[in-house]
Amino acid sequence: VAGAGNSKLLRVLRGEALEVPPVWMMRQAGRYLPEYRELRARAGSFLDLCYTPELAEEVTLQPIRRFGLDAAILFADILLLPHALGQELSFSEGEGPRLAPVVADRQALGRLRPIDEMRETLAPVYETVRRLARSLPADVPLIGFAGAPWTVASYMVAGQGTADQGPARCWMYRDAEGFERLIELLTEATIVYLAAQIEAGAQAVMLFDSWAGSLPPERFVRYVIEPARRITAALARAWPQVPVIGFPRGAGVMYEVFAHETGMAAVALDTAVPLDWARRALRGVALQGNLDPMVLVTGDPELSRMARRIVEALRGVPHVFNLGHGITPDADPRNVELLLRAVRG
Amino acid sequence: VAGAGNSKLLRVLRGEALEVPPVWMMRQAGRYLPEYRELRARAGSFLDLCYTPELAEEVTLQPIRRFGLDAAILFADILLLPHALGQELSFSEGEGPRLAPVVADRQALGRLRPIDEMRETLAPVYETVRRLARSLPADVPLIGFAGAPWTVASYMVAGQGTADQGPARCWMYRDAEGFERLIELLTEATIVYLAAQIEAGAQAVMLFDSWAGSLPPERFVRYVIEPARRITAALARAWPQVPVIGFPRGAGVMYEVFAHETGMAAVALDTAVPLDWARRALRGVALQGNLDPMVLVTGDPELSRMARRIVEALRGVPHVFNLGHGITPDADPRNVELLLRAVRG
Repeated sequence: VAGAGNSKLLRVLRGEALEVPPVWMMRQAGRYLPEYRELRARAGSFLDLCYTPELAEEVTLQPIRRFGLDAAILFADILLLPHALGQELSFSEGEGPRLAPVVADRQALGRLRPIDEMRETLAPVYETVRRLARSLPADVPLIGFAGAPWTVASYMVAGQGTADQGPARCWMYRDAEGFERLIELLTEATIVYLAAQIEAGAQAVMLFDSWAGSLPPERFVRYVIEPARRITAALARAWPQVPVIGFPRGAGVMYEVFAHETGMAAVALDTAVPLDWARRALRGVALQGNLDPMVLVTGDPELSRMARRIVEALRGVPHVFNLGHGITPDADPRNVELLLRAVRG
Repeated sequence: VAGAGNSKLLRVLRGEALEVPPVWMMRQAGRYLPEYRELRARAGSFLDLCYTPELAEEVTLQPIRRFGLDAAILFADILLLPHALGQELSFSEGEGPRLAPVVADRQALGRLRPIDEMRETLAPVYETVRRLARSLPADVPLIGFAGAPWTVASYMVAGQGTADQGPARCWMYRDAEGFERLIELLTEATIVYLAAQIEAGAQAVMLFDSWAGSLPPERFVRYVIEPARRITAALARAWPQVPVIGFPRGAGVMYEVFAHETGMAAVALDTAVPLDWARRALRGVALQGNLDPMVLVTGDPELSRMARRIVEALRGVPHVFNLGHGITPDADPRNVELLLRAVRG
């Protein structure tokens, strides 16, 4: 039977080990593609691109058309959520995102917009999902996504990306109860956001916790594990058939707790995770990953060798082939072709 | 018997579990101390400070005098080694270090200075060590240090600090053999550098691999484990009584391989390492760490609570109390007093 419900991605996320794993790439819709750069130049700002359904749809489809990847991921940004909660958001070239004013104490929490008013801002994102649900090939499922509460909080508190999430760590140690309110607010908002993406047609969702690695274990449990568990539980009550993929980047040893205590269908592995360990320690969930995206810059022979090693290392395990981090703007699209040949044979 | 050979630090590094662990802090000589900032303002450049023995000695002694810490660590910088190998080194305020010209291919390797000419540049560092060996209290051992080959290479290749060590990763995937020559050169140079520090009076040495976490496991073995093993073996042949502390920051699951296959006396743990796991998985080496330095900014009650939890979690294990990352410039020196009280009771 054809259709996305029977797609390779969803079969693996339900626990099936396939001879040839499905392949998609984090940031597969992006700057390394000439067709993306062309459309981006015409779109106005990056935010305009995210909030214009026909453009966001087109950008999402570009890598599917060019490469025939096994899954599409919604084109959006993890900071659309704080934007919808009332922070101003801008992206300036070479500087990274800015959120203002910062949300760094309890008072600032009170100035955020209520969760049920997010839809005003996020409606175009849901419309993009609806369009994609119609326009994608039947065997290519659409993955929706959100930033995880801890990672999104780290940007909201600092107003920008930081090397060490210092401002958020300061707040959590000064006033754990106040900081926890932000995490709880984001947990609720993320449930609403992902639920709306699923209602609009997303067939799986992914939770990106890019800065999970900067938390001591005790805080990792409170701000990474707990929110992830609440999010998967809330979604599973309404959509038991929609799998959630969790990406606690840099979690190291804590990947084991994450895999077993959050209710994720799959765990995305960063490049540092040894696959022999993952096979053993993360039993019971599907594994996604974990090629170093830098080989998509440098090419063969290392690219094909490393890709095949990953396929071999996870043979017999439910495995979604992916990178261990997003593809970089200087990657060569021809190397993606080599990658697909190496994985698919 | 008094003396540094019987100091708490060296006893723990030889495998003894003490009731109250010795305490020192990464970057304990630094900008959070007013007396450091005052001396720094008079010293000229940061490099002048590193290369002027009486000033580097004074800066090293400042935190020992103020706090009575259980170990001193040489004041220097991991980039003095590439400087001694012929790269130009500068530190500009707010910008971080710059090395020029970059060493990003085999040809550039040929332009470096031979290892036996490093002494010209590094002689003042060894003189600082000699002075400290005389001026430190008898029960406060001096720790020498170097950057580990992978981390130092990542700066040499990029010419600066990078978020992802992309340039070095590119070289290693494009030309593993060429890149390996750089790693081998740095391994040899590090042995010479640390040997000279020990000859001058350092009683332990530490190897900082700050970017160990950005390598896939296979490369981690080649560029982190292998060089570390060669360095400890070479030093142990000449100085079997001098312990080496390894810090593969961000190694995650690979901490286990690092602890068992490098011949380190101790392994320094970053803030993300769960101590119950470390107790179990890293048996056989002393453990150093791993308080989040951010609590030295934010203070009590979290500071004392977290410090005591670490002491409890490693009770019965050879443990050197330390931070999981360097103390930050905005830390409050009064919080260091609170920390010592929490650890020492």
